[in-house]
Amino acid sequence: MKDDHSHEPKERILRAAIQLFARKGYSATGVRELAKEADVNISMISYYFGSKRGVLEEILNYFFKNYQSIIDQALFIDASIDQKVRSFTRKVVDFFRKDPDLIRVAFTEMPFDLPNIAEFKAERIRKIIPLGQSRFIKDLEAKGELPFKTEIIGPAIIGMIVFHFLMRPVIESIFGQSFDDEFYDTYSDEVANLFLYGVIGQQMEYKD
Amino acid sequence: MKDDHSHEPKERILRAAIQLFARKGYSATGVRELAKEADVNISMISYYFGSKRGVLEEILNYFFKNYQSIIDQALFIDASIDQKVRSFTRKVVDFFRKDPDLIRVAFTEMPFDLPNIAEFKAERIRKIIPLGQSRFIKDLEAKGELPFKTEIIGPAIIGMIVFHFLMRPVIESIFGQSFDDEFYDTYSDEVANLFLYGVIGQQMEYKD
Repeated sequence: MKDDHSHEPKERILRAAIQLFARKGYSATGVRELAKEADVNISMISYYFGSKRGVLEEILNYFFKNYQSIIDQALFIDASIDQKVRSFTRKVVDFFRKDPDLIRVAFTEMPFDLPNIAEFKAERIRKIIPLGQSRFIKDLEAKGELPFKTEIIGPAIIGMIVFHFLMRPVIESIFGQSFDDEFYDTYSDEVANLFLYGVIGQQMEYKD
Repeated sequence: MKDDHSHEPKERILRAAIQLFARKGYSATGVRELAKEADVNISMISYYFGSKRGVLEEILNYFFKNYQSIIDQALFIDASIDQKVRSFTRKVVDFFRKDPDLIRVAFTEMPFDLPNIAEFKAERIRKIIPLGQSRFIKDLEAKGELPFKTEIIGPAIIGMIVFHFLMRPVIESIFGQSFDDEFYDTYSDEVANLFLYGVIGQQMEYKD
């Protein structure tokens, strides 16, 4: 997670788990294999995390802590809706680029043999939603009645970005280009535009 | 895949593989386990598909065949941009609802030990893109220069929908509701609206 801690066994286990879960999946990753990859004794995993499930939960907690901090930084500013959305997409894109394996684990790991991992994620997201409500949806409501459900519009913007990163190797191959800093500047802006014009354009029409 | 063929061994293998890959992941699913779940002799898997990899490729081919047929039906009609997008989102949502496990496999299975599966997907998508270009992007271009990259806008609409289905158990838990037919009617319309207002609103602004 943090480079300066990468020499600590706990960090090494988390880092190795993110890579293995992202590439092989949670179910296919053995505890022995994880210990080997992290270069720790197998007992360290139960010492720090209890179990493989505990490692996954710690990874998800780390993801949500970062995600919440992005929301805090992007939405808790005195700025227009436009500026908030642009700041949010830019920060999310930067975060996702920095650690694509983490994003893959956070958004796809929901193994059948761990049915309550969905509930675990839901609980964390439930804590984040009021932030978005109070700092974004209220601004929109001030412009008139909302012509859409927040449970549809909310996940839509994050969905566009997550999908890009999950499919990135495929999209790069299709368009024969490797996405660089310049692409991601444009990318952040265009996703923000699509969302802003989509949400606010709808709302304006609705008022007429 | 098709119910009327569910008694044939080949179909049973594919159906069992979709379930197992979706729930445990491709890497964690053993060939022996797959044969047992499909109630076939293990040799049937190599007979029909060559290998586990062959089963995954057949699943992806099945997905892309269906996806292409949706594009054909939604875009190859003499209709406005608005009608095409609404028809596309409705058909995609119906398809995804019918078989969430298939969608999960199609969009998340990209194991590290099978690096060229990304290329396999890319090849199939490359064949679909000209359809979208000729029947949708050209209509948009007729309205003026495009203020966005098609490699960003194209995946965005499908990304919003895929994300909803990948995260559906989490989203249902968060909002304390089980999504029914009525929800999905609204859902299709709102995603189409977000995309249409987003894309066309941007384009109008750009022309001013």
